[in-house]
Amino acid sequence: MFSIDERLEKGKFFITNLPLCRVFLQDDSRFPWLVLVPCLPDVTEIYQLETKAQNALIEEISLISKVLQHYTKSDKINVAAFGNVVSQLHIHIVARFKTDLAWPDPVIGLKGAVLYGAEQRDKMIGDLKRLLVF
Amino acid sequence: MFSIDERLEKGKFFITNLPLCRVFLQDDSRFPWLVLVPCLPDVTEIYQLETKAQNALIEEISLISKVLQHYTKSDKINVAAFGNVVSQLHIHIVARFKTDLAWPDPVIGLKGAVLYGAEQRDKMIGDLKRLLVF
Repeated sequence: MFSIDERLEKGKFFITNLPLCRVFLQDDSRFPWLVLVPCLPDVTEIYQLETKAQNALIEEISLISKVLQHYTKSDKINVAAFGNVVSQLHIHIVARFKTDLAWPDPVIGLKGAVLYGAEQRDKMIGDLKRLLVF
Repeated sequence: MFSIDERLEKGKFFITNLPLCRVFLQDDSRFPWLVLVPCLPDVTEIYQLETKAQNALIEEISLISKVLQHYTKSDKINVAAFGNVVSQLHIHIVARFKTDLAWPDPVIGLKGAVLYGAEQRDKMIGDLKRLLVF
């Protein structure tokens, strides 16, 4: 049965469900950062997904990337499936700017998250929920 | 016309061509690390690919990940499309071990590459070339 590792949900806010994935906002206002979790049990690597689910995954990665880049006007989108800490398959999609504090280094695993204020967070979740129409 | 940014080819060895991507070995013996470059011109983000190419990309990511994990008996596969330094779309696929020097942090951008010796490199390229049959 599918469930989300509770460590994955920590520090994240639910945005929406797509056909395959649950979409979260990472609670770190330094970087506009979404996390996709495919709603399938016992998956740790992309290659374990069947072809249909692989195609759905890349379609949803593309949708999220495009929406996030247009919404934030970022310079680059970073996409990563690591899972070294929590092995359940999840994909980070981060909008990066040449002016952000970590550029050009990766931000996954970077310490010192600056949490969203309630107003900024609610606006972002609301906006993205409206834009992420499948 | 398709060409590979020369900064992408630096520090890498050609392994093989798949239907969509050219596959390279990253010259860093600390981590078994392959890089896929889709052979399409002017692409920096996954969402810019047409559906057919997106599906081919995730199929090739899956093939490479599976082969690399079985070949190295790694604990985890890390997949990332960043492009903050060289924007041409390329995907890092890295075999990670709980005992490797950077675990659980990402290794992309990590300084201090330990180059392969010729024998070790040629064996790895030869083995992977044989295993990466599409």
